[in-house]
Amino acid sequence: MTPRSAGFRMPAEWEPQAGVWMAWPERPDTWRLGGKPAQAAFARLANTIARFEPVTMLVSAGQWANALAQLDPAVRVIEMTTNDAWLRDTGTTFVTDGQGNLGGVDWRFNGWGGLSDGLYFPWDADDAVAAKMCAIERARRFRAPLVTEGGAIHVDGEGTVITTEDCLLNPNRNPDLGRADVEAILGDHLGIDTVIWLGQGVPDDITGGHIDNLACFVAPGVVLLSWCDDPADPHHAVSREAEARLLAARDAKGRALRVERMPMPTPLFLTADEAGGLDRTNPALSSAAGDRLAASYVNFLIVNGAVIAPAFDVPTDAAAEAVLRRLFPGREVIMLPSREILLGGGNIHCVTQQQPAV
Amino acid sequence: MTPRSAGFRMPAEWEPQAGVWMAWPERPDTWRLGGKPAQAAFARLANTIARFEPVTMLVSAGQWANALAQLDPAVRVIEMTTNDAWLRDTGTTFVTDGQGNLGGVDWRFNGWGGLSDGLYFPWDADDAVAAKMCAIERARRFRAPLVTEGGAIHVDGEGTVITTEDCLLNPNRNPDLGRADVEAILGDHLGIDTVIWLGQGVPDDITGGHIDNLACFVAPGVVLLSWCDDPADPHHAVSREAEARLLAARDAKGRALRVERMPMPTPLFLTADEAGGLDRTNPALSSAAGDRLAASYVNFLIVNGAVIAPAFDVPTDAAAEAVLRRLFPGREVIMLPSREILLGGGNIHCVTQQQPAV
Repeated sequence: MTPRSAGFRMPAEWEPQAGVWMAWPERPDTWRLGGKPAQAAFARLANTIARFEPVTMLVSAGQWANALAQLDPAVRVIEMTTNDAWLRDTGTTFVTDGQGNLGGVDWRFNGWGGLSDGLYFPWDADDAVAAKMCAIERARRFRAPLVTEGGAIHVDGEGTVITTEDCLLNPNRNPDLGRADVEAILGDHLGIDTVIWLGQGVPDDITGGHIDNLACFVAPGVVLLSWCDDPADPHHAVSREAEARLLAARDAKGRALRVERMPMPTPLFLTADEAGGLDRTNPALSSAAGDRLAASYVNFLIVNGAVIAPAFDVPTDAAAEAVLRRLFPGREVIMLPSREILLGGGNIHCVTQQQPAV
Repeated sequence: MTPRSAGFRMPAEWEPQAGVWMAWPERPDTWRLGGKPAQAAFARLANTIARFEPVTMLVSAGQWANALAQLDPAVRVIEMTTNDAWLRDTGTTFVTDGQGNLGGVDWRFNGWGGLSDGLYFPWDADDAVAAKMCAIERARRFRAPLVTEGGAIHVDGEGTVITTEDCLLNPNRNPDLGRADVEAILGDHLGIDTVIWLGQGVPDDITGGHIDNLACFVAPGVVLLSWCDDPADPHHAVSREAEARLLAARDAKGRALRVERMPMPTPLFLTADEAGGLDRTNPALSSAAGDRLAASYVNFLIVNGAVIAPAFDVPTDAAAEAVLRRLFPGREVIMLPSREILLGGGNIHCVTQQQPAV
């Protein structure tokens, strides 16, 4: 049985949610200064989401009491071992069947590229997160025969998914699967009929090019694309190619897509002070002072009644906020300072996983 | 707010249940041979309960996959760190308010006697179990200002609790609380009005004398007492004194109690082979060959439609089964071989915690 054959589909992020899941950051090769600045940022994010809907924070046994002390009492804190805190990628992709039942897709996870390109080893605890979430929620679990991450897919809730070739067709994920195989598995597990392929992700994205840092659906038929006008910036070509592919595509309903452009943030770089706060035990995560950060405003989360988006304390923040206010007129737009999350390699969307209402 | 002031009470064990919680045994100073025989016994118990109602098994991250492999797929496996597997004592005492809400009493836990008489150190993970269970179930949590364990109390669901002075008035639990203080806290947290005090527990009980190894309610106004006719057995005097106290008591409804006698098992002793399988790192748990085991048939669990009771492969098993069949005519009586659980210091009731239906 697959989710599709059992009547399940992945709702769009703007559909009503039952809550949001996160995990507590602590590994000292990802998060500087023993994770303390990141923990404060995650706590602020969780406490902000909790104003709109329930939040569950997964926390290791050792950090359990410390997380409780920083989180709003409304946040549900549950013990779970993880290898890192990227719940978008390691958590269940929840699906619903329209009959009051919750299901959970449990993608295979290999640390964004396995032994060749992965970001850390081991990743066994991360690969178990989705199954454990399904157990906690008594959700029907569907283990998928595909190595991927939740950040590599965005759905419109009406039969279409967008993703990138850089991730899903990469030999470091699924060397034995071709494009048609991947499309079939995505269709069966997300309940979708059409896969729209983009090519590369945002430059410097250590995930290998996740869609959720590059573009997202903001409504059926409307895609918001991280856009760069500067020909000297490597994202210039990426965003142009992505736009061309999106404009040439048709979604599952046969619609042409409208593409909205989201400005790239003012370029951001790792400081020497920030780089100095990392454990240097992991070459894949050993960023150096001056490295460019893969910042993007499309890495936001939609929750019930609000959009929570990253802010970087740079001039482009105001333009990004204006775009989001225009595209989400019915929701509060909250620009949350998130440099500490960005330093770990992702942003607000990467560290959250919504659970749809059933 | 206490459970009573918020309208909650602890239902009797025979009231409808939503499920049963257990934890996976693994510490090698409690469970011989690295816990493997006990794990098989716990799995058999969980799989048996799962025939009647949902079961949740709490398992450490390290044992998670091994537990999954031994448990019926219907058993919900959730990661949790514990110091040991006595969910009756460390788990939430669930309470309900008759309005569809679930609450959880979170007793303070000090390892059955703290630094003076406790069975192991540390016990911090055990003390956190109840709070974590409440979070998982989204139950309203009531932290109680009393050091005790769930095995130290039995309620009739109609306003009465039975307990033992040996545990609840022991200076190793609550040195600053007197009898009236303890009665007030029990009343406020269980929603009961009457405390019936017995004195000592079953001899050789390493908990210090838990009621759940000595006696239990089997219906309102009816107590089943572990009984010993042999004057040479130290339990002879204990059971006589307990019976006298029970017959002199009145419950919250003003009723005299009917006392039913449950025969003690044929005396059971630790073998040299069994003792040799334990890590010897903990003096409090270092049983020796020839030590008497605190076996009792009243250490059973009531679930929806059944009673699951310990069997020891001795002649008294049949008499115990007959007593249970007579007292629970509407339920299936399952006598489950449980010597491996007994070797750890408790039995079926000690390793389970029912969650009432709301």
